[in-house]
Amino acid sequence: MQNLTLKPARKERLADTVYGQILDGITSGRFASGDKLPSEAELSLSFAVSRPVVREALLRLTTDGLIQSKRGIGTFVSTQPSSRLTELANTSELSSYLRSFEPRIVLEVEAARLAALRRTRADLDRAHAAIEALRSAIASGERGQEQDIEFHDAVARAAGNDYFCDLLNDLRQPVTETMNIGLELARERSPGRRLRIIEEHTRILDAITAEDSDAAASYMKYHLIQARAAVLDVRHLENSQALDGAQRSTN
Amino acid sequence: MQNLTLKPARKERLADTVYGQILDGITSGRFASGDKLPSEAELSLSFAVSRPVVREALLRLTTDGLIQSKRGIGTFVSTQPSSRLTELANTSELSSYLRSFEPRIVLEVEAARLAALRRTRADLDRAHAAIEALRSAIASGERGQEQDIEFHDAVARAAGNDYFCDLLNDLRQPVTETMNIGLELARERSPGRRLRIIEEHTRILDAITAEDSDAAASYMKYHLIQARAAVLDVRHLENSQALDGAQRSTN
Amino acid sequence: MQNLTLKPARKERLADTVYGQILDGITSGRFASGDKLPSEAELSLSFAVSRPVVREALLRLTTDGLIQSKRGIGTFVSTQPSSRLTELANTSELSSYLRSFEPRIVLEVEAARLAALRRTRADLDRAHAAIEALRSAIASGERGQEQDIEFHDAVARAAGNDYFCDLLNDLRQPVTETMNIGLELARERSPGRRLRIIEEHTRILDAITAEDSDAAASYMKYHLIQARAAVLDVRHLENSQALDGAQRSTN
Amino acid sequence: MQNLTLKPARKERLADTVYGQILDGITSGRFASGDKLPSEAELSLSFAVSRPVVREALLRLTTDGLIQSKRGIGTFVSTQPSSRLTELANTSELSSYLRSFEPRIVLEVEAARLAALRRTRADLDRAHAAIEALRSAIASGERGQEQDIEFHDAVARAAGNDYFCDLLNDLRQPVTETMNIGLELARERSPGRRLRIIEEHTRILDAITAEDSDAAASYMKYHLIQARAAVLDVRHLENSQALDGAQRSTN
Repeated sequence: MQNLTLKPARKERLADTVYGQILDGITSGRFASGDKLPSEAELSLSFAVSRPVVREALLRLTTDGLIQSKRGIGTFVSTQPSSRLTELANTSELSSYLRSFEPRIVLEVEAARLAALRRTRADLDRAHAAIEALRSAIASGERGQEQDIEFHDAVARAAGNDYFCDLLNDLRQPVTETMNIGLELARERSPGRRLRIIEEHTRILDAITAEDSDAAASYMKYHLIQARAAVLDVRHLENSQALDGAQRSTN
Repeated sequence: MQNLTLKPARKERLADTVYGQILDGITSGRFASGDKLPSEAELSLSFAVSRPVVREALLRLTTDGLIQSKRGIGTFVSTQPSSRLTELANTSELSSYLRSFEPRIVLEVEAARLAALRRTRADLDRAHAAIEALRSAIASGERGQEQDIEFHDAVARAAGNDYFCDLLNDLRQPVTETMNIGLELARERSPGRRLRIIEEHTRILDAITAEDSDAAASYMKYHLIQARAAVLDVRHLENSQALDGAQRSTN
Repeated sequence: MQNLTLKPARKERLADTVYGQILDGITSGRFASGDKLPSEAELSLSFAVSRPVVREALLRLTTDGLIQSKRGIGTFVSTQPSSRLTELANTSELSSYLRSFEPRIVLEVEAARLAALRRTRADLDRAHAAIEALRSAIASGERGQEQDIEFHDAVARAAGNDYFCDLLNDLRQPVTETMNIGLELARERSPGRRLRIIEEHTRILDAITAEDSDAAASYMKYHLIQARAAVLDVRHLENSQALDGAQRSTN
Repeated sequence: MQNLTLKPARKERLADTVYGQILDGITSGRFASGDKLPSEAELSLSFAVSRPVVREALLRLTTDGLIQSKRGIGTFVSTQPSSRLTELANTSELSSYLRSFEPRIVLEVEAARLAALRRTRADLDRAHAAIEALRSAIASGERGQEQDIEFHDAVARAAGNDYFCDLLNDLRQPVTETMNIGLELARERSPGRRLRIIEEHTRILDAITAEDSDAAASYMKYHLIQARAAVLDVRHLENSQALDGAQRSTN
């Protein structure tokens, strides 16, 4: 970015580090799902950082759905992400990467809405080709990350406003990092989840094709909330494993 | 409703009738998917109604995703609903029932958002019980409509504002009618679609439980857009049939 | 409403009463702006109700912008409404009336959005006439409440979906009560605020006329948030007094 | 921006030029408010560009509120911007600058929403200082553009997510261009409009201070829609002139 002189303040970087260390504790099972976390004061002591830093880290872990605080009782682990997460990502940077979803979601949802109103035939063809390429990539056992990005670019382009493309370009690094994790976890584990990603893309494109701007916006938002949840396996993620099992048993 | 003296004006009722007749034509295959519809002038002549009435009917068919107009070329059938639709519903009233989704969606999405902020333990238990009851009903081959309504009531109740319950109560009739059609079409045809309904409810409840108001609102919106699309089988409905097939072939 | 069997539970009615009593304390100046409120435990004791009831009442006072809690310090009065409020309204019912804004805002915002897409010439004329009637009423020193309601009805009607009219009809009583308070406080005090109400209506209608659905929705939301704030004089209300003064001094 | 290789396609740049020329015609009074524009075919001929280029330019003029098409009748001028506009801006670039409001609005609205949830005392102080500095600048007859930008930066910073600051930084050029025009037109003409800008900022900050995220988002959206409308004087802009007059007469 032009003049990206804004570096996160020291407090914010410290909070990212503390976030990463608590996340490591959760991923490794030291703090298991349902466990009560140490108090703010105890965490402040054991990480040797100030309480505002700990509070900031806990707030972000809450926002990301990993922990939940119960008024007057304490803070509990609500989700245990895949143990592979620590291999796929630098946990002290994960908090920062996940924050990119906040602007990304509003930008891509608005782009999908506008795309439904303005798309040309060429836009639809390009988005469709990106979905087919993703399908092939996944069928060949690849992650399909380039094809995934190509689809999102095609939607932004279809919005008929270059600023959307430029701004999403500026988010390229955190988008790529989080996409890698989500696609890799899907690749390793769940055929259901992989088919869902293709299906989610298809629904977005169908709504854009049908010029249904409200549905296009809603499907894009759904897709990105799922994508964010997939990075950390938080519970309201589409329960693909269960569904895989259920469907198998109906066959 | 208290003093529901507002009857749809004559033009609106005529438009509903014309909507129903064109829908019959589409459902019966007289106008097949991809076909060009007769012009406004021709439809006006053959239905013996004014052109504003025809225009109104075409606008609603477009809003409902059944037809699509191409600038300077004409209007085309984009979706062919199940032929069972005409048995399940009075097509001349279907247009009116589908319009109930417009206020329903904004009310239930806001209720879900507030529920994530205000729900009590009892609210969560009630919503959870409704999902389990729906699962049992569907497993026994029933439609599960009462259980479905019970879930939506539980969410509205969890919003901590009785006006939401009252207003949704006032929409009871069109909600029941459209729910019946959607659940019956799912019952007859697709195990995938039935599992999805349960899954969609579960995700809404998980987000409410996790106090994630943005996800709760987004999941409710997604669920209701899917429910509306299911009545008419419009194309951006989750393609459960295809997915059933795809998953079968991976097993 | 049809079968309004849902009565607020005992806890909710108690919370409304406690809300009203604290509000009386604030309005009378016993708890002045900036003052710290007694603790949950003390309030529970002095009102002889359980702590969950007190907590519920405090939550609603916070939502309505009257008090604000500071983590670990206490709860403070943030706004002192007009002392006339207790004459204009039954304070134990005010909490319930104010809750009607939650569904009302989402319904009227969606109605304004749809009105911009579907309004007929007759709809625009009717809404315009309602604004002119409101202007005359206010100029004659009247509240103009009927004319205000007529404008909102005209917008709902312009949405081309009778369900919006019916549902807003069901909210008639709390809407009338809160509108009375807001208009009466404006009538007594501020020529600026009265002109603003007309101006806000005019902007909504201009956006609907211009078929700008996003602006229409945004202006309606702004108008209703201001209307809710006007009932209690909360601080982010358009500071009409200050503006009146400022403009006077520039003349 | 990092690698801003995306240049608007030839068609888009041509459309911007045609937009600028029609805008010149409107501003100069050649096409007066209420006048019917020449047809697409005629414009295509007189500007020697293809019809899709003309259509694109007309769509953008419609989106920007300058013209309005009436089905089957023609396209009419709905707003006549200030004749000063052509001195303040390069009209062939104005269309592109105005497009920046589309991503800007969703980003700043989300930033305001998050700021209400996460702001620190220092954030509030900084935003407050920016408003006071803007007030002084305007009182001294300056545009106050730096102070205006400082306020928006302060809100973005209060969102607790550096990506918002970075992305708004990338929009700096079009934001500065459109802000200059709006502030300069306000400076020359209307004391009312200038006071409103300060008042709009104050309301946003009050809502952020009161931790009312819904109001903060709504006020920011209102402010930016007004700011966009101010560049072109479109009709649903707060009618400050009329209000100035009205208030004067009440004094």
